[in-house]
Order: sequence, then C-alpha cells, then structure tokens
Amino acid sequence: MIHPTALVSSTAIIGERVEIGPFTIVHDNVVIGNDVRIGAHCELGVANHLSGGRPLSIGDNSLIRSHSVFYEGSTLGAELVTGHRVTVREGTIAGRNLQIGTLGDIQGHCRIGDYVRFHSNVHIGQKSVIGDFVWIFPYVVLTNDPHPPSEHLVGVTVEDYAVISTMSVVLPGVTVSRGSLVGAHALVTRDTEPAMVHVGSPAKAVCATSKIRLQDGSERPAYPWTSHFTRGYPEEVLSKWRGEES
Amino acid sequence: MIHPTALVSSTAIIGERVEIGPFTIVHDNVVIGNDVRIGAHCELGVANHLSGGRPLSIGDNSLIRSHSVFYEGSTLGAELVTGHRVTVREGTIAGRNLQIGTLGDIQGHCRIGDYVRFHSNVHIGQKSVIGDFVWIFPYVVLTNDPHPPSEHLVGVTVEDYAVISTMSVVLPGVTVSRGSLVGAHALVTRDTEPAMVHVGSPAKAVCATSKIRLQDGSERPAYPWTSHFTRGYPEEVLSKWRGEES
Amino acid sequence: MIHPTALVSSTAIIGERVEIGPFTIVHDNVVIGNDVRIGAHCELGVANHLSGGRPLSIGDNSLIRSHSVFYEGSTLGAELVTGHRVTVREGTIAGRNLQIGTLGDIQGHCRIGDYVRFHSNVHIGQKSVIGDFVWIFPYVVLTNDPHPPSEHLVGVTVEDYAVISTMSVVLPGVTVSRGSLVGAHALVTRDTEPAMVHVGSPAKAVCATSKIRLQDGSERPAYPWTSHFTRGYPEEVLSKWRGEES
Repeated sequence: MIHPTALVSSTAIIGERVEIGPFTIVHDNVVIGNDVRIGAHCELGVANHLSGGRPLSIGDNSLIRSHSVFYEGSTLGAELVTGHRVTVREGTIAGRNLQIGTLGDIQGHCRIGDYVRFHSNVHIGQKSVIGDFVWIFPYVVLTNDPHPPSEHLVGVTVEDYAVISTMSVVLPGVTVSRGSLVGAHALVTRDTEPAMVHVGSPAKAVCATSKIRLQDGSERPAYPWTSHFTRGYPEEVLSKWRGEES
Repeated sequence: MIHPTALVSSTAIIGERVEIGPFTIVHDNVVIGNDVRIGAHCELGVANHLSGGRPLSIGDNSLIRSHSVFYEGSTLGAELVTGHRVTVREGTIAGRNLQIGTLGDIQGHCRIGDYVRFHSNVHIGQKSVIGDFVWIFPYVVLTNDPHPPSEHLVGVTVEDYAVISTMSVVLPGVTVSRGSLVGAHALVTRDTEPAMVHVGSPAKAVCATSKIRLQDGSERPAYPWTSHFTRGYPEEVLSKWRGEES
Repeated sequence: MIHPTALVSSTAIIGERVEIGPFTIVHDNVVIGNDVRIGAHCELGVANHLSGGRPLSIGDNSLIRSHSVFYEGSTLGAELVTGHRVTVREGTIAGRNLQIGTLGDIQGHCRIGDYVRFHSNVHIGQKSVIGDFVWIFPYVVLTNDPHPPSEHLVGVTVEDYAVISTMSVVLPGVTVSRGSLVGAHALVTRDTEPAMVHVGSPAKAVCATSKIRLQDGSERPAYPWTSHFTRGYPEEVLSKWRGEES
C-alpha cells in the first residue's frame, strides 16, 4: 500500500494498513499509526532544528490529503483529517479528530484540543492555544506579535465551542471565549464575552448567540450549534452533548 | 506528450495532442478534451463519494498549471486556464474560458458561467452561482453558512459583469448584482445595487460605477469595464460588447 | 546532491554544492548560485512569453522550500529563503536575503530591496516597489489596479523599515512611508506618514510608532524595531543600525 514512487525512510515507523501515495516523501523521524492514508506529493517529517529531535507523530485512522507538509516535532492525535497543501510546523500538540482544510497553515508550538475544525486557508500563529470543539473558518488569522517584528510572541486563546467566521483577525494575547461567535471580517482586539456574538472592526459584542435563529424554516436557535450540527462527531460526543442540553 | 513520470490511468479518456507534465497523476474517472496542457505535480480526478460517480471533464484547449488538484464529478468548459495549486472540488459546472488564479479554491457544487476570471487566492464557497464575465480579485471569499457551523448552506449569487475587489467577503445568500463593483476590503451583507459602487464594512452603495474615471489620462469612464478592457476575449465577445454599447 | 528523481535540464547552470530535492524540476533557462538548497516538488524556470528570454537567477546560499514555483525572467539575490509553495513570477528583481513565507505569491515585475521579510501568504501585486528592511505580515495584499479590471496598473511603494500587519490591503499607487506601521486588518487608501501608526478602514494615522512600548516588561519603545529585533541580520547590518541610533 506504499506506492512504488514514494520515498519512505527505513527508520520511519509505519503502522499497519497504511497507504502512502505517489511521489510522497516520509523522512526518518516519523511515527505513523495504523490505518492511515497519506495522499500524493506530500512531505512528512521535515527536519528542523526547532523540533528538539522529537518525531512527527500521526495518530491512527488519519487521512492526509495531497501536497501537505508536516515537520518533525509535532504530535497529531487519532483521526486527523486534512485537505490539500496543509502545513504543520514543529512543536504542535493536537488532540483527536482535528480537521485542517486545504491550505491551512499551522505555524507551530500550538496546543489544540479535540474535535477542532479548521476550514480552508486558516493561519494559526505560533503559541495559539485552542480548546475542544472549536470552529475556525477560511482566511482567519490568529496573530501573536503585539509589536511586529519582535521576539515577544503572545498567542491567542480560543476556548471550547467558540466559532470564528471568515476573514477575521484575532490580535495577540486575546481570548475568544467559550461559545462566543466572531462574525465575518472582524478584528478582535479584546477578549470576547462567552456565548455572545461579536462583529466589526474593532469587534464589539452585539447580542447573545442564542438570539440567532436557524434559517432552515425551523426557527430553532442556531446556538449552541451542538443542538443541531452533529455531522462527523462520534456517538460518545453526541451523547455528552445531549446530556449537557438536558 | 505524456511525461514518462506521469501516472495516467488506462481508463481515463484523453483527447488528441494532450500534454501531461512530470509527476502528475490522472485517475480513472477523467475525461480530457483535445489540445489540453497539464503541468507538473497535479492530481486530476480525485475520487470522492460526493461526486455521484460522475467524471471530471476538462474542455478542449485548456491549460492547468502545476500542483493543481481537481476532483471527479466536475465539468469545466473549453479554454479553462488555471494558475498553480488550484483546487476544484466535485459537483461544479463551469462554462467556457474560466480562469482560476494561483491558489484558487473552488469548494464544489457551484455554477459558473462563461468568461469568468478569478484572480489569485479566491475562495468560492459551495453552492455559489456565478454569471458570465464576472471578475473576482485576490482573497475574496464567497461564504454560504448563515450560522456556522450548520447544514443549511445558502450560496452567494454574482451576476454578469460584476466585479468584487480584493479581500472582500460576501455573506450567505447575498446577490452581487449585474455590473456592480465591490471595493477592496468590504463586507457585503446585503444585495448590491446594479452598476453601483459599494464600499465599507458593512458595504454601502456610494455612487454609480460610471462616475469612476480611468486614471490613464484619458478621463474616459472606467465602467462598464467592457468599454476599455478587452484582453483575452475572442472577437465574438468583443463584437457583442460593441453591439451593447451602441 | 541532486536527487535521482529530480529532472534538471542540462542547459541549466548550477553552482557548486547545490542540493536539489526529490521530484523537483529545473528547466532550461535557470542560473543557480553556489551552496543553494532546493526542496522537493519544486518547479524552477517556468517558461513564459513575458520573461523576455531572461533566465531565472537564484543567488548564492539560498534555500527554497518544497512545492515552490519560480518563473524564468526573475533575479533573486544571495541568501534568499522561502517557505513552502511560494510562487515568483517573471520580471522581479530582489536584493539580498529576501524571505518569502509559505504560500507567498509574488506576481512579477516587482522591485524588492535587501533584507525584506514576507511572512506567510502575502500577495505582492505586479509593479510593487519595496525598499530595504521591510516587513509584510500574513494575508496582506499589495494591489495595483485602480479600477479593476484594466490595463492601467499602478504599483504600491513600500519604503525602508515599513511594517504592514496581517490582513491589510494597500490600494494602487499608495506609498507606505519609511518606518510607518500599518495595523492589522486595515485598508490603506492614502500615503502613510513616516514613523506613524495607521489603523482602520480606511486607515488613519493615530500616533507615532515611538509611542508603542514593548510588552516584554522592559517598557522600551518597540519602534524603530531595529532597536530590539536583530535575529537573522548579519553583523554589518547590525553595526549600521547601531550607528544610526547613536
């Protein structure tokens, strides 16, 4: 299941039933779990002096799509799913079932929880700390330098269940609080309020997320989104959510 | 004209005089017209359960530049031209002479007319409907989810001859009307007015497009742009435009 | 040091101690200096009728990371460093030690000085003119068409030591003046004032850059940034800066 054109180091540790696509390169310092599929034209385990010699570790049941690049020194949990051309630098630790859309750029030294979804083309700056069940939409940038360029990087924190919409920027050191929603094209300069909607540049809290109604004709509240959006989450998560609702 | 390192499925249907570059992969369910050039490091016809078994179809006289990825289940008309690293997902139907700049991401299930130009790094969300002779500039995002994340996607409509400038976001379900111009770094929250300029966040109509003058010393009106910009369009289109003017 | 899977033209001029990675293509009209490392899956020297037959020239001691594409007809000085998947079109002349982050897109016909740093995913429009020691952060776009689409392109000018923060757009013909700082998510519609901070959409000058203090506990001024940020610059540059300070 390793394509004959792939270049796989003999020192890489490859699990059972792993597929590796054409023209993909797997370097020395890589550990890949079981039942992982890796697309074409990827490069895994790029050596880097910032990785401290730690391997790239990819969890079981993961899917990495074509043209993606992962550095050594990061650990991604089970059920990772990526789009095409993602980049993951060194020093990042992510939980289970992280999704990174096409062109996503995880700059390294981030902490990412479980079941996080990055849509296409997000830029997660170094030292970001991201909770569980977070959604980040296209062209969002999490920054980290309060006075660029400098050596004093302060990451963004995104708490559980928060949602950041398309083309928004979060300034260094800011916390996007639990269950808050950042609207599209916003500049988040201060910590958001939990379960509140924030829009504009600079972003301001405008209402509770519970005020937003589904436009599917049901008129049900759209938030917390866990009340209606369940695609891709396992039964154990869904039952936890049902427990929180009742 | 198929490079010896390319991997081309024997079941793919390849036209006459087709060039396929080094390290490019063409999967089973692909139909390529005549006189098509495909660059290096591409992957065409990526299988996907959402494609309904339909092939990827690329029209005659097309040019696909390197590192691009096309899924099965989309149909692109004749004279497609792409930059590098474009992604086209399944279920999209595009007319003739679509241009997609480098890093463009067409998310799938879109309808795109004839002679549409996407500059670099646009993100065309699922269910977008785009007319003829539309221009979309870098880092524009057409969104589709009114309350993310949800299952209720409502695409953007962009009508004929509309222009959307750099780094603007169009919210779900909004129509960018015929011949309207969206300025750079705008957030379009409501339908635009035909042949009007819209700027800001949220975007507001500020004047007729005809008020904008060419800065080339001629002082002629810059809009409709068809009065002065003709590069790349065939004589049949130009004569149609001349007919509309007179 | 040329990987056996790389495809290197016999007419390309390759310096001493050059490494070329797997699956990389070097076309005919390319001149590579000494001690250059080129990653995997790159394509160098893409032929183009706009290049006037001039070669792609890469200076000594450069590093080009994987999946990058360079056209013929551009000249990059010594110590170029790129991230992954950068694109450099024809007709650009850059000085020494240019850094281009992952996904950077240099559209061609640009002039770029010495020691310029582009962070990830910048879009440098055609005809941009960039001085020395400039910093441009992710998702910044330098535009060039005052009334898109048109044939009358007017590039942006960015003067020495200027800094443009994340997700900002600079309109055509605008000058970002020496030592000025553009905040995140700004729309720069007019020339900025030297050594002033500009924020908002449209961007306005709000204070002198010298008012910004380092958040590292030192309370020292954060600008000019050369007073505290020295990583990656050679001793000859640092001694020049020390001379300017005193």
